[in-house]
Amino acid sequence: MSGDLKIGIAGIGTVGEGVVDLLNKNHEHILKRTGQNLKLVGLSARDRSKKRSFKVNDYLWFDNPCDLASSKEIDVFVELIGGSDGIAKESVEVALTSGKHVVTANKALIASHGMELSKIAESNSSILNFEASVAGGIPIIKLLKESFVGNKISKIYGILNGTSNYILTQMEKTGKSFEDVLSEAQSLGYAESDPSFDINGTDTAHKLAVLTSLMTGLPPNLSSIEVEGIQSISAEDIIFSKKLGFCIKLLGIVSEQNGNYIQRVHPCMVPIKSSISRVDDVNNAIFVEGNFVGPVVLEGLGAGAGPTASSVVSDLIDVSKGKNVLPFGCKLENKEIKLDKDAARLGPWYIRFKVIDEPGVLAEIAAELKNQSVSIESVLQRGRAPGECVSLIMTTHETEEKKFKAAMQQIQKLKALAEPPCVIRIEKLLRN
Amino acid sequence: MSGDLKIGIAGIGTVGEGVVDLLNKNHEHILKRTGQNLKLVGLSARDRSKKRSFKVNDYLWFDNPCDLASSKEIDVFVELIGGSDGIAKESVEVALTSGKHVVTANKALIASHGMELSKIAESNSSILNFEASVAGGIPIIKLLKESFVGNKISKIYGILNGTSNYILTQMEKTGKSFEDVLSEAQSLGYAESDPSFDINGTDTAHKLAVLTSLMTGLPPNLSSIEVEGIQSISAEDIIFSKKLGFCIKLLGIVSEQNGNYIQRVHPCMVPIKSSISRVDDVNNAIFVEGNFVGPVVLEGLGAGAGPTASSVVSDLIDVSKGKNVLPFGCKLENKEIKLDKDAARLGPWYIRFKVIDEPGVLAEIAAELKNQSVSIESVLQRGRAPGECVSLIMTTHETEEKKFKAAMQQIQKLKALAEPPCVIRIEKLLRN
Repeated sequence: MSGDLKIGIAGIGTVGEGVVDLLNKNHEHILKRTGQNLKLVGLSARDRSKKRSFKVNDYLWFDNPCDLASSKEIDVFVELIGGSDGIAKESVEVALTSGKHVVTANKALIASHGMELSKIAESNSSILNFEASVAGGIPIIKLLKESFVGNKISKIYGILNGTSNYILTQMEKTGKSFEDVLSEAQSLGYAESDPSFDINGTDTAHKLAVLTSLMTGLPPNLSSIEVEGIQSISAEDIIFSKKLGFCIKLLGIVSEQNGNYIQRVHPCMVPIKSSISRVDDVNNAIFVEGNFVGPVVLEGLGAGAGPTASSVVSDLIDVSKGKNVLPFGCKLENKEIKLDKDAARLGPWYIRFKVIDEPGVLAEIAAELKNQSVSIESVLQRGRAPGECVSLIMTTHETEEKKFKAAMQQIQKLKALAEPPCVIRIEKLLRN
Repeated sequence: MSGDLKIGIAGIGTVGEGVVDLLNKNHEHILKRTGQNLKLVGLSARDRSKKRSFKVNDYLWFDNPCDLASSKEIDVFVELIGGSDGIAKESVEVALTSGKHVVTANKALIASHGMELSKIAESNSSILNFEASVAGGIPIIKLLKESFVGNKISKIYGILNGTSNYILTQMEKTGKSFEDVLSEAQSLGYAESDPSFDINGTDTAHKLAVLTSLMTGLPPNLSSIEVEGIQSISAEDIIFSKKLGFCIKLLGIVSEQNGNYIQRVHPCMVPIKSSISRVDDVNNAIFVEGNFVGPVVLEGLGAGAGPTASSVVSDLIDVSKGKNVLPFGCKLENKEIKLDKDAARLGPWYIRFKVIDEPGVLAEIAAELKNQSVSIESVLQRGRAPGECVSLIMTTHETEEKKFKAAMQQIQKLKALAEPPCVIRIEKLLRN
């Protein structure tokens, strides 16, 4: 493409302001280094009069994002509205069918409608780029599409949500409860007022679905991911995990096993000495294993105005160079990734029971575990309070997921249990 | 580009065999995922009859790499011969002027003649890709050219040489001497029979020169890099660095200071708790800081058949897609990066003196340091052997490089010194 790249941005929150800031501050640098003149021409957002870090009047204004998306004034539509459906999806579709290119940071949109949008882009010869949708400034999407593309990838896992990683890190550092750390994170702006998607694993699942699609060449499929969040992790779990030599992280994991792909999002206990345990606060980290490149790890800021803007702008520069790589690097196969419960994880578990401190409880629990051939590795009981509640901690040896869950279902019926047990998968050798 | 990409490879050592292996094993995978048919057609190497992991007879053979480079049978010439000059350079020039694209893993060539080759490529509309020249399987070149290109980069540093990192790691793990670990590394194939370039920092300097060029848009300039190797690191230094809370790593560092770029390659003491200290054995790691993306760290295998082949093949796929990004991502400015001694590092040092154990030695050394305003942070003396040699360890506070070196020059004249002191820079806060 020669001349200017005329850009329209819909959605001017933190990320939108970051993109405008980058385009202004680094405009000359980008022009000099790439020969591309990235020119912001149009904006759309809910509230024109909101106080912003730049002058809205310097650009064309569109009340309706779809009008911006189809405007003759722009070459590329940057969707930063968010959400899997509604006006975000609609405006992206309008842009693509109007022959515009699209750059988006919207993981929910790509995870939910990646296949459909990819087809629309292809049939309109439009570029659809979404580097900023996963792991902020870490360019994992380009790496999977372009750098590791000669490899068969067997595994990807990572810390993909900064908010939940911040909460877990602070719980570990301060010993505070989940609730206390969450409300502090909210007042510091590290967690949103409605943090559900961050803490219940949904945001991580969106990102994992996109990564899995890039790894497998199959359409993203959210319903094939087993998702658990970090809501039930207590200060006690953090203490016990440390005692056991582990640290708790919320991971998204996809691995290939005999041609099946297993996708899961859940808190994991990882060895304190592993590199992933040292990825603190709002940082993200992604591990990729390819059959020639071997293991590669990337770490960086997973969210925030700057890192996300960096990825949006790298997508814009690719658009300006006319690099028409297909959205997922290849035509996605029209085949579903299924949730394969039987092929699920084989590994050890951590369990924290809250039980009435009375004789026979341990025997009852142990009997149920034995019935499903779940072998206990260690038992810890904290304190002693006859007739009252105490914490009983167990770790198991390697166990088939199905058997473990069957045992837990039986155990939950025991009268001695004061609340549902907290279970966390132990991932000792994630690299394998 | 449509149809097949016809490939010729010159130089069939470990990496060459790795590329052939990847092209064979993952051929269908690559075709399915990229739509590109990568077809190896021609080979050139010194010895046709050498035992190899594949059948040489399946391909056209050229005794002279230049004949392969200009052959009508190929679209792209893969140079894996090595060396900054001679037949490697000649054959790359022949390929480019014959209108072929070139993929190379040759850091010495790019570091020494990057500007010149870049111009030849440009004037022939040829692609010149060299992802495999730096850090094996870590796609740092694409990231700097395409992903972080919207950022002003202020710093890049990394462990860029697997052999020297292996030696330092083993010295740390086993307590053995440099010489013993080196000869073990040679017998294990982790070090070459002539390991000079790996251990004296030259290989790291080649890679740093390439990274600096991508960061600055200026031609690679080896002579502007201060280079020290790891030859003088002793088992004692490893012990003392541990005691001081550090670990020794050979780093390549480029940083921007007030518009000047400072490039240096030398062993560094880095905090044991820093992430870079945990990059062990033949692994490489690279840290990049951009003004929007913030800090990003990449870690992976920095050498070996598989990782290097992965990078060569990603370059080939880019060629097959006709992605004509300029070799360094931009037209290099015709301006030299100068070695700016005055703008050099400000930081603390570790010094190990081997001195005759007699009264007054410490006073003499301390006086010379004081003369240059070098302030001592700590002093350690190991053992006591009147009239014989003992190790005297010092660390300094932050010191201007020029003043430190001036003091050391005076100290070296002292009669009490049994050998030249071993000095290592302490890098406490590399991220800043």
